Amino acid sequence: MRNAKKWLVVNPNTSASMTASIRAAVTVPGTQDEVRVIHPDTGPESLESFYDYQIAAFETIKWVQNDQQTYDGILVACFGDPGLYALKEISTCPVVGIAEASFSTALLLGKTFSVIAALQKAVPMMSDLIGQYGLEKRCASIRALDRNVLDIDRDQDSIYKLFLTVCGHCVDDGAEVLILGCASMIGLKEKLEACLHVPVIDPVGVGFEMLKMIAASGLSTSRAGLYQAPPKGLFLLR
Amino acid sequence: MRNAKKWLVVNPNTSASMTASIRAAVTVPGTQDEVRVIHPDTGPESLESFYDYQIAAFETIKWVQNDQQTYDGILVACFGDPGLYALKEISTCPVVGIAEASFSTALLLGKTFSVIAALQKAVPMMSDLIGQYGLEKRCASIRALDRNVLDIDRDQDSIYKLFLTVCGHCVDDGAEVLILGCASMIGLKEKLEACLHVPVIDPVGVGFEMLKMIAASGLSTSRAGLYQAPPKGLFLLR
Amino acid sequence: MRNAKKWLVVNPNTSASMTASIRAAVTVPGTQDEVRVIHPDTGPESLESFYDYQIAAFETIKWVQNDQQTYDGILVACFGDPGLYALKEISTCPVVGIAEASFSTALLLGKTFSVIAALQKAVPMMSDLIGQYGLEKRCASIRALDRNVLDIDRDQDSIYKLFLTVCGHCVDDGAEVLILGCASMIGLKEKLEACLHVPVIDPVGVGFEMLKMIAASGLSTSRAGLYQAPPKGLFLLR
Amino acid sequence: MRNAKKWLVVNPNTSASMTASIRAAVTVPGTQDEVRVIHPDTGPESLESFYDYQIAAFETIKWVQNDQQTYDGILVACFGDPGLYALKEISTCPVVGIAEASFSTALLLGKTFSVIAALQKAVPMMSDLIGQYGLEKRCASIRALDRNVLDIDRDQDSIYKLFLTVCGHCVDDGAEVLILGCASMIGLKEKLEACLHVPVIDPVGVGFEMLKMIAASGLSTSRAGLYQAPPKGLFLLR
Amino acid sequence: MRNAKKWLVVNPNTSASMTASIRAAVTVPGTQDEVRVIHPDTGPESLESFYDYQIAAFETIKWVQNDQQTYDGILVACFGDPGLYALKEISTCPVVGIAEASFSTALLLGKTFSVIAALQKAVPMMSDLIGQYGLEKRCASIRALDRNVLDIDRDQDSIYKLFLTVCGHCVDDGAEVLILGCASMIGLKEKLEACLHVPVIDPVGVGFEMLKMIAASGLSTSRAGLYQAPPKGLFLLR
Amino acid sequence: MRNAKKWLVVNPNTSASMTASIRAAVTVPGTQDEVRVIHPDTGPESLESFYDYQIAAFETIKWVQNDQQTYDGILVACFGDPGLYALKEISTCPVVGIAEASFSTALLLGKTFSVIAALQKAVPMMSDLIGQYGLEKRCASIRALDRNVLDIDRDQDSIYKLFLTVCGHCVDDGAEVLILGCASMIGLKEKLEACLHVPVIDPVGVGFEMLKMIAASGLSTSRAGLYQAPPKGLFLLR
Repeated sequence: MRNAKKWLVVNPNTSASMTASIRAAVTVPGTQDEVRVIHPDTGPESLESFYDYQIAAFETIKWVQNDQQTYDGILVACFGDPGLYALKEISTCPVVGIAEASFSTALLLGKTFSVIAALQKAVPMMSDLIGQYGLEKRCASIRALDRNVLDIDRDQDSIYKLFLTVCGHCVDDGAEVLILGCASMIGLKEKLEACLHVPVIDPVGVGFEMLKMIAASGLSTSRAGLYQAPPKGLFLLR
Repeated sequence: MRNAKKWLVVNPNTSASMTASIRAAVTVPGTQDEVRVIHPDTGPESLESFYDYQIAAFETIKWVQNDQQTYDGILVACFGDPGLYALKEISTCPVVGIAEASFSTALLLGKTFSVIAALQKAVPMMSDLIGQYGLEKRCASIRALDRNVLDIDRDQDSIYKLFLTVCGHCVDDGAEVLILGCASMIGLKEKLEACLHVPVIDPVGVGFEMLKMIAASGLSTSRAGLYQAPPKGLFLLR
Repeated sequence: MRNAKKWLVVNPNTSASMTASIRAAVTVPGTQDEVRVIHPDTGPESLESFYDYQIAAFETIKWVQNDQQTYDGILVACFGDPGLYALKEISTCPVVGIAEASFSTALLLGKTFSVIAALQKAVPMMSDLIGQYGLEKRCASIRALDRNVLDIDRDQDSIYKLFLTVCGHCVDDGAEVLILGCASMIGLKEKLEACLHVPVIDPVGVGFEMLKMIAASGLSTSRAGLYQAPPKGLFLLR
Repeated sequence: MRNAKKWLVVNPNTSASMTASIRAAVTVPGTQDEVRVIHPDTGPESLESFYDYQIAAFETIKWVQNDQQTYDGILVACFGDPGLYALKEISTCPVVGIAEASFSTALLLGKTFSVIAALQKAVPMMSDLIGQYGLEKRCASIRALDRNVLDIDRDQDSIYKLFLTVCGHCVDDGAEVLILGCASMIGLKEKLEACLHVPVIDPVGVGFEMLKMIAASGLSTSRAGLYQAPPKGLFLLR
Repeated sequence: MRNAKKWLVVNPNTSASMTASIRAAVTVPGTQDEVRVIHPDTGPESLESFYDYQIAAFETIKWVQNDQQTYDGILVACFGDPGLYALKEISTCPVVGIAEASFSTALLLGKTFSVIAALQKAVPMMSDLIGQYGLEKRCASIRALDRNVLDIDRDQDSIYKLFLTVCGHCVDDGAEVLILGCASMIGLKEKLEACLHVPVIDPVGVGFEMLKMIAASGLSTSRAGLYQAPPKGLFLLR
Repeated sequence: MRNAKKWLVVNPNTSASMTASIRAAVTVPGTQDEVRVIHPDTGPESLESFYDYQIAAFETIKWVQNDQQTYDGILVACFGDPGLYALKEISTCPVVGIAEASFSTALLLGKTFSVIAALQKAVPMMSDLIGQYGLEKRCASIRALDRNVLDIDRDQDSIYKLFLTVCGHCVDDGAEVLILGCASMIGLKEKLEACLHVPVIDPVGVGFEMLKMIAASGLSTSRAGLYQAPPKGLFLLR
């Protein structure tokens, strides 16, 4: 039997409701692992711009830096992967973002994936992220519900029809796999798969499984190259 | 506690020695999962050309098609992923190749990876594969030991120095993660990591973890698009 | 006067009707060249999946390997180029696939080409092939008739209207050249060109001309790199 | 005569010495323009990691957001363009980063550019940035002096020989234009050009000229798409 | 106060009306700079094919080569940048094309740009140009008015509605910045921006500002690599 | 027996010696085809810059436009394909450039090709051409002899050793096929192949075979898209 592990799951926004949904998604009955799910003390309640990302990333980094505990892995549970590169630099355990984990998983399930975004504004943001990750060839499309994150979190049911329509357009774009591109969309996987007959990736669940898989394989972030630790060390953040 | 699962791990070549190494790499003490590790009845003893791949893929497909059992997932344990697309088409459970699984994992550990191949001939073959998967932007280099697969399997120790040299060249190429690009290289991960200070991916172990992770996430191969089931069904293979 | 040459044209499926059409397309009245058109002894009657490709490639390789004759060139007459890489590895004469030959020709006729596929399932398959060949920048689109291969072979006339519609969509996509992406579409070139006013490539005819052109130029497959002969030689296939 | 304009130039790190060099580089005798050169109140003294970038970006955004003045344009004077996307989102005047401005200029002077970085760690960071900007085809290479930013700023003379060597390697890589990839390298342009006979871009000077050129053309950041203003408005930053 | 400079602006076609519009667009009241705006003695009145480009480029090169004067910079004021590479080779001052200058500027204003072309024929021509410049990732779309150049020059008002429609389609394609892809479209910038709420680049004005910006930065075309001076010197052109 | 055809082969430079070599390379004993090999009346004696290309292209276009004869195909026999796009626009028969024909052929012989250029200046020029054609993924490298075109034409023997060295470097770069990137290199194919054991493409011979192959397939340049005829027709060139 493997030893109990300790995981940190960070919701970079400050919505307690979203943190609660994330906590539910990463709780694994039947293991003795400890999963700590937190959000930073301050910052935007939802992340819908690079401006929001910058604040949330800063607050998340500050939280993680000042935390005294040791983890077997850290999950960043916002689909834009805000602050991810910096968190990889300063952590000795593996750090995974739910967007990058979703893309890595999608690659194994089909040739192409589409991402369902909340607001239209997120479409070019995700396109930029996929380009930065060098994965544009595997992306069929990015489409938005045109609803804001908190509304989706609050009221998945009433916009479910809209979900179906937008996901259907993605399938028409050639998507073989769908990725729910916002942590607010937790829990829609099974329902959508039953209607659409393509795999639907719930990024929080998949991100957590991927983090555990990396740790189980005895792997962690490379300390050479892009994620090399900050040469001058850490700056005092209070 | 999750139910016991049943996995099929296929070594597409017919080397009993490599099948044994693969079996050792995917055995998980402490679970009740059943892992069946097989190789096809006939075919090349090692796979070092597309010609070898075609025969091995055919024999593997025939074996899988004629097998009566049901699995929770299938792992193809040869780094060229021979026959992978066809196996995805004809299987209802998730099918993962160790090359694609290694690339997906490497994406999460660093910006770039290099692949260590056995023979020089494998270098353009892997380059072709990475291009087919649309991941060339993340590949720093592919370098060969210039030793054949069975020699590596038989005698890892005596060529360990060569491993270190070739891996060192990859790090100079900018690789942040190294992938051992042949199932014959099982077991070198820890030793190489200790010397090279970058993550080293053992493709069989990582492939198996990735397969379990996909199943644990309730995901499977997309039945739309590239891997749609053969329209005319299966052909009788005896 | 150049010496008479001897060509092998392989239809990788087992449809006698398609083999006959292919034979008609490569017969050159007025030369003394010998053109041998064959199909393997067993295998799928049409190739519409990677599964079909794997079986057909295996049977084709076995046929070629066991054949005692010497050729000046070999043409693989299925648009997916199944088994092409392996056949290039094991042959000393030039081997050309009708898909790759069609793409090479299209590059000289216009900036962009579109491919007309039989079934919808073939669309991502051809996209994968074009990506593997590194030619995606020259591809305007891939569109399917949504008819299976044997129906097209049997009944070109009754689906000619559908051809016109699909080809017209390709022209709207920006295609400057159209490629008939299935050997079952032999013979539609002139008729479609008269309506659509863009060059239409009949892959079997073009593939055969390209093969002869390579031989006439004193060229053959490179023995270095991707198509280097199998290091361990051939495996006994019976 | 055009009206006097007011520019803000932000040094995102807190080195007073670098702020002074930047101020010297953007002072334009003979105009009545006002150029305000500032650095944030707190944060790293030099920026050599994504961690540093995140803190500096946050502090810069806070400074800009809380500033009461109106500008005709804002220049972000650190070669990693930290916080640039967010600053574009929240500003109504044009905002330019010195890295993006240097790339845009280099495109007009030669087919390929190389970037000279300070530390080796910056090489993959700049490669990531160039990939994010979609300009990798125009980049010949990125090479590091392997000296930290503050040392370069303090002592350009004693490492000038090293500059020449590294720049020479870039020319051998095929670079037609060189970009000094750190604000600490201000002032080396003429000296290097005289030795190397290729254009050398001093990013601060070029960035400032580019900003003025955009304003002079009556242009500003697009408010549609990637840089659309934050949907929920600004968050109180104190 | 900087010294007065002398600029050459070449309209490569022979339309006196377009030369006049170009002259108006580059006249800068309040400076003592001299701007000479010319067109070649003979050649097509508008440039709508590669054939036209070849003649216009030849005549432009001849004109420039035989001109006795010295300039601080040369602007090629046709959106296809005809003859640009050759003019860069033979000039010691900076030479800028209005297409390349527009692309470089657009990169700083948004993630993606679209180009509005005159005739449909120009769409693949511009696509080819953007591909040659390696900027296809930043291009959202290219759309044509389907009007010829001289008609647009003569009658902007009556086709303004068409402009709005086509530009609107570009915004739907995801364009964050619009580029007026023909010198005949001078003067529509402000009007279109007011309706469309995205930056609109007038290539002649932007090209001229970019040229001055390069000169002001003490930069010029690289003499190494692509634009190296003709090895055998100039050919007598009369 | 097919009817006799009439071909035009244009050497765009004015070297009589090179025209003679080209004539020898395209003469086909045993056919009744007529092959007319010409060079323009005036222009540079060899083409080593874009400046040279512009003049040669103009003179070639003028020659072709004013010629009264009808051809079954036109070959442009300079490796830079100067004026090719315009010649395709104005010709109703197929027009092929020897560079594009060499690339199309190389694609069928190996995964990657390298090009041997004359002067170093040609290296970025060919890189630009390969990028414009969208084929960079198949190009292993471009290397120069650093000798001018006329010297190579005059004295192939004395620089043969240099050829071997440079070609050897290309093979080390991973080239599976070599392309002699200048019409002055005619006749070295067999000698180099015997030493280097990879296919060597002589562009004039291959270009001519490709042209005949296109005509034999009943194909010609697309009249839609990039090569659509000039909308305003031809300009009087005297």
